[in-house]
Amino acid sequence: MARVFNFSAGPATLPQEVLEEAAGEMLDWRGAGMSVMEMSHRSAEFDLVAESAEADLRELLSIPSNYKILFMQGGAQAENAIVPLNMMRGESGADYVDTGAWSMKSIAEARRYGTVNVVASGAADGYTRIPRQDEWRPGADAAYLHICSNETIGGLEYHWTPQTGDVPLVADMSSHLLSRPLDVSKYGLIYAGAQKNIGMAGLTLVIVRDDLIGHAHPLCPSAFDYKIVADNDSMFNTPPTYAMYIAGLVFKWLKKMPAESGRPDLSPLAAIEARNIQKAALVYDCLDASHFYSTQVAQQDRSRMNVTFRLADEKLTASFVAEANARGLKGLKGHKLIGGIRASIYNAMPLEGVEALVATMREFEKTRA
Amino acid sequence: MARVFNFSAGPATLPQEVLEEAAGEMLDWRGAGMSVMEMSHRSAEFDLVAESAEADLRELLSIPSNYKILFMQGGAQAENAIVPLNMMRGESGADYVDTGAWSMKSIAEARRYGTVNVVASGAADGYTRIPRQDEWRPGADAAYLHICSNETIGGLEYHWTPQTGDVPLVADMSSHLLSRPLDVSKYGLIYAGAQKNIGMAGLTLVIVRDDLIGHAHPLCPSAFDYKIVADNDSMFNTPPTYAMYIAGLVFKWLKKMPAESGRPDLSPLAAIEARNIQKAALVYDCLDASHFYSTQVAQQDRSRMNVTFRLADEKLTASFVAEANARGLKGLKGHKLIGGIRASIYNAMPLEGVEALVATMREFEKTRA
Repeated sequence: MARVFNFSAGPATLPQEVLEEAAGEMLDWRGAGMSVMEMSHRSAEFDLVAESAEADLRELLSIPSNYKILFMQGGAQAENAIVPLNMMRGESGADYVDTGAWSMKSIAEARRYGTVNVVASGAADGYTRIPRQDEWRPGADAAYLHICSNETIGGLEYHWTPQTGDVPLVADMSSHLLSRPLDVSKYGLIYAGAQKNIGMAGLTLVIVRDDLIGHAHPLCPSAFDYKIVADNDSMFNTPPTYAMYIAGLVFKWLKKMPAESGRPDLSPLAAIEARNIQKAALVYDCLDASHFYSTQVAQQDRSRMNVTFRLADEKLTASFVAEANARGLKGLKGHKLIGGIRASIYNAMPLEGVEALVATMREFEKTRA
Repeated sequence: MARVFNFSAGPATLPQEVLEEAAGEMLDWRGAGMSVMEMSHRSAEFDLVAESAEADLRELLSIPSNYKILFMQGGAQAENAIVPLNMMRGESGADYVDTGAWSMKSIAEARRYGTVNVVASGAADGYTRIPRQDEWRPGADAAYLHICSNETIGGLEYHWTPQTGDVPLVADMSSHLLSRPLDVSKYGLIYAGAQKNIGMAGLTLVIVRDDLIGHAHPLCPSAFDYKIVADNDSMFNTPPTYAMYIAGLVFKWLKKMPAESGRPDLSPLAAIEARNIQKAALVYDCLDASHFYSTQVAQQDRSRMNVTFRLADEKLTASFVAEANARGLKGLKGHKLIGGIRASIYNAMPLEGVEALVATMREFEKTRA
């Protein structure tokens, strides 16, 4: 068995030790005589799985006690409808910041449920930078303000937290939640598909302040009404139990990060952030030192998770992807909307994978420049 | 490792060889160098996984070419909303048959979207039998007629197919799809949560006739609009990729059933049905021969999947469950709504598990009667 380095944007690479643990427990979870996949979601055994996943997530993010954690389904695309169905409340609409492909999806879906005020857009700059907050034009009476805090396709990331006063801040954090410390109390609601830094596709995490629960539109499906989900401890419908188990293993892996990275003084998210900064710097330094490669994204808004770049000679893009593939570096082709190259370097991408990518970039440049 | 016999109603027991295959491929799927869990849903490798799952399901159920297979999320509870959101079409409502707990959930949710006409109810009989079709009082102009073709909690199963003429027949088949041959062409839409006979929780199968697609309510979330899901080959949002993979392994296991059961003349679903008939008969014969145990369900409506029964002395129920647990027979406690015992004996429950259950029932009766 030779593991590759998988740079896919999601579903994405997972920690090898998580996969090994899941494989080892597949037929018998800790003496239960069955797989987690086979357990009733109402069983004492699964209670342990679910409770420990929730407790570890709460600890990792220091989630305040007035926030609920909901384990849902449908990913960010479903939340793009579920958020306005639960939060628009028939008020004068909601504010959205447009920073690229994922913001645009959120905006298009929200428009089906009420008035959307786009308070700022990166469109005029080709989505190469995140509009500063002093450029935003918020609405008068918005039910909430929505951002995509890491644009997976464009490769932009908020390295600051918007200040929205009394207007609840809602963030699609699918592709960078758990990659850095976060002050949850600054947000009204956070959602994230699991298939980047959390685990496998099919699980959506929602972290929501409790006063924002209980205002769903009358036509919101019960399974997606935050109040019904919260009141039933995410078991109104059968939750994606195995995906919750995998997420729990990932949370345990994260908690070991301070010791493993030789920084027991740091919190787990500070320790993984330090590693993520180091990994991202390796790629961006290589880009900045080269005329052969370039990134369009403004320095202050560069994503640590999804590094997007182009070759000066676009005709060489396919050869670069092929060369990288041959070296076991997979999933580097950019999203079809913008082309070029995208290296997704989530928490579980080892430093060695990023070093191999940079070595490949340098050698390819040397032979083809 | 000692595997137990798991009689849970769902999530439920899976074929051991499926779990072994999944464990063996967890770190490296057939030389891809990664787990299926880590694969981009847009990758050539995952295309193989998805296409073979869909092709095998189409073959197993002989699904006609004018039916789409959709891989969705949220389970039957979500479909209880998604069906009316897609199918009520502002007409004079929909017909529902009430045969127990799951029908009632479907009816309650559908009422949020339009007029529901309950054409027949088993309530007067304590949900011990399925109303015959000549007792039904269908509405004049229903958009569809909905049944729950196997009531997981009560233990009732349709052993016949309703004739609904031009009114599309919609069936929640969560707990018996793939347990017997089925003429899909008699149905407009079939849905099923995967966590009984298909695989793991987090995947919902929808099989829908193509003329019924494209009529969604304007407020239906895009991720749950059958047309959008169908037009995007179930990849409008990231599908639950690992759950699709596990379902695919289960389909392959089912296809081997004729050879494994020494009946190569039978189709896979006829072969598994023969085994399911044999397994269910073992339990029902034991119940019928006893005054110590009894089932409330009318003979002609007894479920082959979920056998519900009571002890004549209800005070012994907890001891029976404890005794069975001690022998490695798990998950037998009846649903809290009706109490008693429930043995869910899905496709993957081996004959040996049912034999062990019956032996336990007889010995318990002998010592306690």
